[in-house]
Amino acid sequence: MARDLRLVLIISFVSVIVFSTSSSPLPRFPRQNRARIQPFREIETRTDTRLTRTYLPLLRQRRDIEWFATNSGFIWEIAPKFGALLVFPEHRYYGESMPYGSRDEAYKNATTLSYLTTEQALADYAVFVTDLKRNLSAEASPVVLFGGSYGGMLAAWMRLKYPHIAIGALASSAPILQFEDIVPPQTFYDIVSNDFKRESSSCFSTIKSSWDAIIAEGQKENGLQQLAKTFHFCRALNSTDDLSDWLDSAYSYLAMVDYPYPADFMMPLPGHPIKEVCRKIDGANSDTSILERIYAGVSVYYNYTGNVGCFKLDDDPHGLDGWNWQACTEMVMPMSSSQENSMFPTYDFNYSSYKEDCWNTFRVNPRPRWVTTELGGHDIETTLKSFGSNIIFSNGLFDPWSGGSVLKNLSSTIVALVTKEGGHHLDLRPSTPEDPKWLVEQREAEIGLIQGWIRTYRLEKEAQFSLLKRSW
Amino acid sequence: MARDLRLVLIISFVSVIVFSTSSSPLPRFPRQNRARIQPFREIETRTDTRLTRTYLPLLRQRRDIEWFATNSGFIWEIAPKFGALLVFPEHRYYGESMPYGSRDEAYKNATTLSYLTTEQALADYAVFVTDLKRNLSAEASPVVLFGGSYGGMLAAWMRLKYPHIAIGALASSAPILQFEDIVPPQTFYDIVSNDFKRESSSCFSTIKSSWDAIIAEGQKENGLQQLAKTFHFCRALNSTDDLSDWLDSAYSYLAMVDYPYPADFMMPLPGHPIKEVCRKIDGANSDTSILERIYAGVSVYYNYTGNVGCFKLDDDPHGLDGWNWQACTEMVMPMSSSQENSMFPTYDFNYSSYKEDCWNTFRVNPRPRWVTTELGGHDIETTLKSFGSNIIFSNGLFDPWSGGSVLKNLSSTIVALVTKEGGHHLDLRPSTPEDPKWLVEQREAEIGLIQGWIRTYRLEKEAQFSLLKRSW
Repeated sequence: MARDLRLVLIISFVSVIVFSTSSSPLPRFPRQNRARIQPFREIETRTDTRLTRTYLPLLRQRRDIEWFATNSGFIWEIAPKFGALLVFPEHRYYGESMPYGSRDEAYKNATTLSYLTTEQALADYAVFVTDLKRNLSAEASPVVLFGGSYGGMLAAWMRLKYPHIAIGALASSAPILQFEDIVPPQTFYDIVSNDFKRESSSCFSTIKSSWDAIIAEGQKENGLQQLAKTFHFCRALNSTDDLSDWLDSAYSYLAMVDYPYPADFMMPLPGHPIKEVCRKIDGANSDTSILERIYAGVSVYYNYTGNVGCFKLDDDPHGLDGWNWQACTEMVMPMSSSQENSMFPTYDFNYSSYKEDCWNTFRVNPRPRWVTTELGGHDIETTLKSFGSNIIFSNGLFDPWSGGSVLKNLSSTIVALVTKEGGHHLDLRPSTPEDPKWLVEQREAEIGLIQGWIRTYRLEKEAQFSLLKRSW
Repeated sequence: MARDLRLVLIISFVSVIVFSTSSSPLPRFPRQNRARIQPFREIETRTDTRLTRTYLPLLRQRRDIEWFATNSGFIWEIAPKFGALLVFPEHRYYGESMPYGSRDEAYKNATTLSYLTTEQALADYAVFVTDLKRNLSAEASPVVLFGGSYGGMLAAWMRLKYPHIAIGALASSAPILQFEDIVPPQTFYDIVSNDFKRESSSCFSTIKSSWDAIIAEGQKENGLQQLAKTFHFCRALNSTDDLSDWLDSAYSYLAMVDYPYPADFMMPLPGHPIKEVCRKIDGANSDTSILERIYAGVSVYYNYTGNVGCFKLDDDPHGLDGWNWQACTEMVMPMSSSQENSMFPTYDFNYSSYKEDCWNTFRVNPRPRWVTTELGGHDIETTLKSFGSNIIFSNGLFDPWSGGSVLKNLSSTIVALVTKEGGHHLDLRPSTPEDPKWLVEQREAEIGLIQGWIRTYRLEKEAQFSLLKRSW
């Protein structure tokens, strides 16, 4: 048993919520309908030599694991420190984990898609981890879960639903409260808008007034053509909505990836990209039109390298990816854009039209109350004050998803690590020489808490072991 | 909110594991294949007048609620003390809660039965309770779960999986550890056997030697006929196994319902029925044959009223009830009968033949590891030491299911209330003037703990409420 205890498994669910940059069959709002999950790699490990030897026959390497490894570097860095095995199980219906043999079959209709649920994914992980540990003869090894965004939600929920599988979870930027009426629906866009306002109130105002300018331009003769030219699109625009959606995506992503150093997560970007965008918007000559300013700003996002000749709007012609299905069944996150605080066009979440669009797309009705019924969320303070343990909810307040996450400690062991700055699961990224002090400290706090979980677990196991020995 | 807090909902899952008294298409062992669950009543309430008025339109009365009410009297007695609403939601596929419109359709084949799972039942309850509270505008009201046997397992699991739905659970005689290798497979029959041995070692020995005597008798010419006559069966025996099964059921039930006062749960029985059975077995004239002694003893169980002229063996010709399906899918409880300690014929649990029988009966393969993967059980001490709260595991050690339950405190709030005596969920029965002191004390402890849960919940809610008020 003592040997067993040396091995720590770390299961990573790292993933990101990714907005589509294009129009889709789903409505303009809510945003999440167009969000997509980067697939989990089916299995990938880094570990000490002994384990690698034990393990490699079970594993398949994937070509694009690099993207993943790069963006969840924190876990890769700490796994060896813990002498841990790191595994990325892939979520069914994503990447290459397709039921029914192929993506086409799996995504055929509402019946074949019906196994694409959060509960099913959690159960898959439970079976996977149990089998993995049994195959390793490592039943007594503690498992810690890591995830960001949807992956962070999965990590937190899995710790709550499967405490016998994992001793704890780091849930980074996990908006587990972004459901029903738990947080106000305007939270997300208010935070995005504040991120811009904080950098520059004139930048905020320019963006806020740009939507009307776009519509006005679009209504002119050859207006759509002119807009396509101003914004360097490769093809003509069908409507001004195409452009608005494209801009909306850029601003939302920028708020998510407003990291303090240059990074290439969604797009290659400079450090503090919103500052850069606003510098372009504010800094143009005084005779520059509002739309030219907007174009200059958004080019920081879409064309920081300067290599893009013209922009494509439509990179997801089917709109039938897994997250759309999940948003149309369980993951109903109401989103509005307020008149007062948002720089986006005013919008009130309309469930009827949401439902109608889901029906038209998938022939399925959403279950907007399912997540709070199955997984909780309402009054989480009372529920988790004396239930559960060992969850870290980490958030940077620049991240628009932070508003739907847990921002204060729920108990002595279900804690919130909140940084004033920081974007979407910044803490999971690899460490860099440019890391600000608060980020270094956040990660140190995470490591310290995780070490504590493992220490406590081992002490308890050892106590039981000696109790058992004494009774022989 | 304050008004809300006065209302306490109590959801009861009371049910019992009931052995069939007949042969079935399933193998002789394990016993649980023939156990059946008494259906939960769909909805039934007792409450104060105000609530009854609010509520009755939602409810349907069932004819046979009396059986249920009688045998879960404890909950009926305490509900008014808490000003509580008491509800019995019926488990799908039991009673009248049939998917596909009818029992025949629901039980047609493995496909139509595939929604008969524990997880589905728990999710049903979650939806039901959430809707119920919303309809009552009682979202803030605490819910406490009560259950016995399989119902006790459901109650404990539901508190663990749905802490946002219920603040606590009383899990009476809930064998949540009777899976895989968590407890030795001979546990159940060892306890039954000890119950008899405790009363009388000669009674134990007589029973233990009776199986060979039955086989010897059966091998004689007209032996089966003679056995049918000795045991007063209405029809001929097909094999001595029919008789052995019939006796096995009686002994097992007797151990479960070895209550300290006369009761009519499975059968009308005297108090301390095993004592009575052994008195008959031991007290016969010295020239009474072993089989006549056995008959005299078992008649206490099958014919205490003396009204039965002859006994039927086969009261479940289909053997396709819900529990058989559950035992052939998720609820695989390995059971053996040991050479040394058991008074039953020696038997080693044989998973291959178990699986084969399930295939022959339902065209389904069991998933023997599913319960421990989905719901835990292995190393429950470590898992629940710092996870979860507010569960009472109550057990009487006469009950053969107690061996698969939780018999010691797992934490300061997940506690075991164990009585040296006491049968299968005795604590859930109505109070009687004959209740022994230890039973009265056990129930008082339960009420005290539940009161504590509710008090803590209310204090927390009120603290949040005043915090909220202060921030206005």
